Amino acid sequence: MGSFRGHALPGTFFLVAGIWWTVKYSIWHATRRNKGIGSTRLASRASQRRLEIIESSVILFFSLVGMLAEQFGSGGPKLQLYDFVEKHWDHLHSWHHATMYLFFGLFATVSLIIHTTEAAPLALDRLMLAIAFFNEGFLFLYHLHGRSMLDVHVHLLLLYAVFGETLVAFLEIFHRGNIILELLRCTLTVVQGTWFWEVGFVLYPPRGPEWDLKDPNNMMFITMCYSWHLAFAMLIVSVLYCIVSCVVHFRLKKTPPVEMGLLKARERDPESEDELM
Amino acid sequence: MGSFRGHALPGTFFLVAGIWWTVKYSIWHATRRNKGIGSTRLASRASQRRLEIIESSVILFFSLVGMLAEQFGSGGPKLQLYDFVEKHWDHLHSWHHATMYLFFGLFATVSLIIHTTEAAPLALDRLMLAIAFFNEGFLFLYHLHGRSMLDVHVHLLLLYAVFGETLVAFLEIFHRGNIILELLRCTLTVVQGTWFWEVGFVLYPPRGPEWDLKDPNNMMFITMCYSWHLAFAMLIVSVLYCIVSCVVHFRLKKTPPVEMGLLKARERDPESEDELM
Amino acid sequence: MGSFRGHALPGTFFLVAGIWWTVKYSIWHATRRNKGIGSTRLASRASQRRLEIIESSVILFFSLVGMLAEQFGSGGPKLQLYDFVEKHWDHLHSWHHATMYLFFGLFATVSLIIHTTEAAPLALDRLMLAIAFFNEGFLFLYHLHGRSMLDVHVHLLLLYAVFGETLVAFLEIFHRGNIILELLRCTLTVVQGTWFWEVGFVLYPPRGPEWDLKDPNNMMFITMCYSWHLAFAMLIVSVLYCIVSCVVHFRLKKTPPVEMGLLKARERDPESEDELM
Amino acid sequence: MGSFRGHALPGTFFLVAGIWWTVKYSIWHATRRNKGIGSTRLASRASQRRLEIIESSVILFFSLVGMLAEQFGSGGPKLQLYDFVEKHWDHLHSWHHATMYLFFGLFATVSLIIHTTEAAPLALDRLMLAIAFFNEGFLFLYHLHGRSMLDVHVHLLLLYAVFGETLVAFLEIFHRGNIILELLRCTLTVVQGTWFWEVGFVLYPPRGPEWDLKDPNNMMFITMCYSWHLAFAMLIVSVLYCIVSCVVHFRLKKTPPVEMGLLKARERDPESEDELM
Repeated sequence: MGSFRGHALPGTFFLVAGIWWTVKYSIWHATRRNKGIGSTRLASRASQRRLEIIESSVILFFSLVGMLAEQFGSGGPKLQLYDFVEKHWDHLHSWHHATMYLFFGLFATVSLIIHTTEAAPLALDRLMLAIAFFNEGFLFLYHLHGRSMLDVHVHLLLLYAVFGETLVAFLEIFHRGNIILELLRCTLTVVQGTWFWEVGFVLYPPRGPEWDLKDPNNMMFITMCYSWHLAFAMLIVSVLYCIVSCVVHFRLKKTPPVEMGLLKARERDPESEDELM
Repeated sequence: MGSFRGHALPGTFFLVAGIWWTVKYSIWHATRRNKGIGSTRLASRASQRRLEIIESSVILFFSLVGMLAEQFGSGGPKLQLYDFVEKHWDHLHSWHHATMYLFFGLFATVSLIIHTTEAAPLALDRLMLAIAFFNEGFLFLYHLHGRSMLDVHVHLLLLYAVFGETLVAFLEIFHRGNIILELLRCTLTVVQGTWFWEVGFVLYPPRGPEWDLKDPNNMMFITMCYSWHLAFAMLIVSVLYCIVSCVVHFRLKKTPPVEMGLLKARERDPESEDELM
Repeated sequence: MGSFRGHALPGTFFLVAGIWWTVKYSIWHATRRNKGIGSTRLASRASQRRLEIIESSVILFFSLVGMLAEQFGSGGPKLQLYDFVEKHWDHLHSWHHATMYLFFGLFATVSLIIHTTEAAPLALDRLMLAIAFFNEGFLFLYHLHGRSMLDVHVHLLLLYAVFGETLVAFLEIFHRGNIILELLRCTLTVVQGTWFWEVGFVLYPPRGPEWDLKDPNNMMFITMCYSWHLAFAMLIVSVLYCIVSCVVHFRLKKTPPVEMGLLKARERDPESEDELM
Repeated sequence: MGSFRGHALPGTFFLVAGIWWTVKYSIWHATRRNKGIGSTRLASRASQRRLEIIESSVILFFSLVGMLAEQFGSGGPKLQLYDFVEKHWDHLHSWHHATMYLFFGLFATVSLIIHTTEAAPLALDRLMLAIAFFNEGFLFLYHLHGRSMLDVHVHLLLLYAVFGETLVAFLEIFHRGNIILELLRCTLTVVQGTWFWEVGFVLYPPRGPEWDLKDPNNMMFITMCYSWHLAFAMLIVSVLYCIVSCVVHFRLKKTPPVEMGLLKARERDPESEDELM
């Protein structure tokens, strides 16, 4: 889209996803650690499933919205790929963005199928996520032809987070439920989110003066800025993790152990989906 | 060979291989999951072996055909490597392609030996496959000297699938029988197959106008096209996996459990070759 | 800072850190190996914790000192980021260096929290260390714009150690307590330390003639020099490891076994924190 | 050294090392597989140790010879590093080569210490080997400044084997005794050996015409040649592995089982050093 809004929208999407994932994985990790004092209630297999289904549906919905916005928004290609009159490809940037959303939609679809049926192996959702991120990075890489230096640089910096997430999601195929990898993925997702906003502000400043896109000093400043975003994302994820841990810990403590015994008998199900893999 | 046919032939080869592998691994995975209800019949160690031997023989046959076609086809070097009259190397492209086929032939030979005798460790076939793919990518990498931009680009895109398969096959040395890795390898093989066809259509259009090989827009379109091929390959592999899973599930259900008991006694063999490693 | 002292300071910091880590991990490894003859005394869980807390505090202190020195030292930006009068970024190099120190400070803070409370998973300290090293390498990479050839080269060589440490620290998330990885990280830290000194001597020779920064022969010599630093670091780490091993072995032997029995009863705690993960 | 002999010598060294390693690992693997029929005699822990000590001594000896030859051979620097008269570095190429030999010497020294004493962890020898190969590749990488195209290319091709061996040796730290990785390392060592000879023949043809070092066709041929060397190395390693397997199998069969029982009682030691790690 090449506009402030075209960067703010995916930025918000990733920011919300990162924060939500942090909360989700923190709850699951906290309940697993407090197993002894009756955590099955908060993270029973059934409720985990329900959560995953809701999450996948929401991601699927927003991927569809993203694709439609890219296609039918103002200046979109409206599903026209080739302009036969002037003999050139039409709105390739919008098509690129729509393809990125498509892969996140595929991830959400597969995740839905995995968690509603028993058809597919559980780890497939991490592979699809890795492929979705890889595809995003791959398209960005060949997306930058002929742009000015700073424009290229801010997009290349984005790729650190994108390919980082690809790697982490791929590692999670083998180390599912590893809280370190999960939090790292959350952090990188938050970085992506805030960085999309930063790119919007730098390339299409809503008010104030334009940035000089050829000044090497701007490039050095922007690089450092990326480190700060990373530090900020680490801070957010840490704070969320601590809050969730405390809340889970205190809520479980308050529950009387008798009720627990009853619950245990009723919900005799595997403690976490990780162990079912 | 530098012709439409020279790309369509390996394309068909990889497409068939990808689809066949998907079916094979889906059957094995489905029978392993349905162990309880008598799956040993469909995937006994002996039948798995027979399948591997047939597969290796077919790959070996086609590698030989490919090598011979490159050498003795029209415009081939006919085993002549150096033109002593004009003092230059003769038909190096055909020799390169023949070398690629050679390594797939070596993979098939080793795989044959592994599954007919007990001489070599089982995981060696994955190593040979990784080496065959690596060699293909390696030769392509130094194959592109002096070609036009789009020609180089479509071949470089191919390398994502080729080196991706190298990595996956190498990982399978340590994680043999991991269905996620197997399906990923199948997907990338299908991508290779369809992309070879695409390259043929772009560089040597059988009818219709020639492509402008220097237009950056064409490059951007082709890149996106590659993502679509990947999505398409993921779709094919998913659909095949689901069909095979259902068929296996229903065929096993129909078998009366009594017969199963008899079978079990008769074929007391390890459930899957993965566990023999 | 761009001065001899600006390289000597972090050099000393890393050199001390590398030597200290070597001693620490050697002690822990030696006590684990001599488990039978009463090693719990030397490396009880409580004393390990205390050591980690002291170490983290010291690192945190020096990170703060580093940040303050970069900001308020002579020629520092004094927290001013943008020069509104002359409309350019102010002292970006100092800000870069301060950001590097910041991430080591974050590592130390998280490590402190991990070892004083039970809030966070143990492996998080290795992830934070990996991120701190990655951030250092990342900023160095975009730090070298417009410098002369040898200046760029000596900084690029530094990145081998920095990114090597990133990789090793990341692997330690999965292989915590692996003495090989720990010693490799120590070695690379010592290399970083001595190399910072070397860079200082080459770029800002305190006495003697200036180096010709454009001579390819100097570049070839410097590259070989890096290998020598690596060999030297390996020597230091080996010697330290041997000394520590011998000392631990002989001190444990001298302790009478009776006292051991008493100790064992008193300090019935897990032998090493690695097993608690 | 820049001569035919300067490439033939390391070539022979690596070729012999590769063949020797193949034989060694094949024997160990074969005896482990034939455990049931009394293999302890052929690969007892004591004899394995003795073999490793001899091997390390030989490597150490040849590393010393290599270093001395580079220093004191005709045209060597004779330990002089800087020419103070003409103010330039002296014979940097010889110094580079000597440094490469130095690291293989360090590997051999550490390996000697590991197998004669119990001081160091076993996996350290693989780390030292990985570092030795890495250092070789690292120095080659910065060794090629200002040479002609084909000269650079043949040395870069060498780096595939060198860095491949680095990776494999590093993986062996975690997967010691994995026969697939061991044979892969053997293969790559043989490739290095034969490729050094090839480089000698191409750059310093002992007889016959000189090669045109700027012809792209020569480059394409040389690349393919590298694949052929790889295939040839795979063939050698396979044939050796098969011969050794058969010989071990038949020698063990001939031994009467009674004697075995006696042996077992006498040499009750761990079957392979891999399990001691």
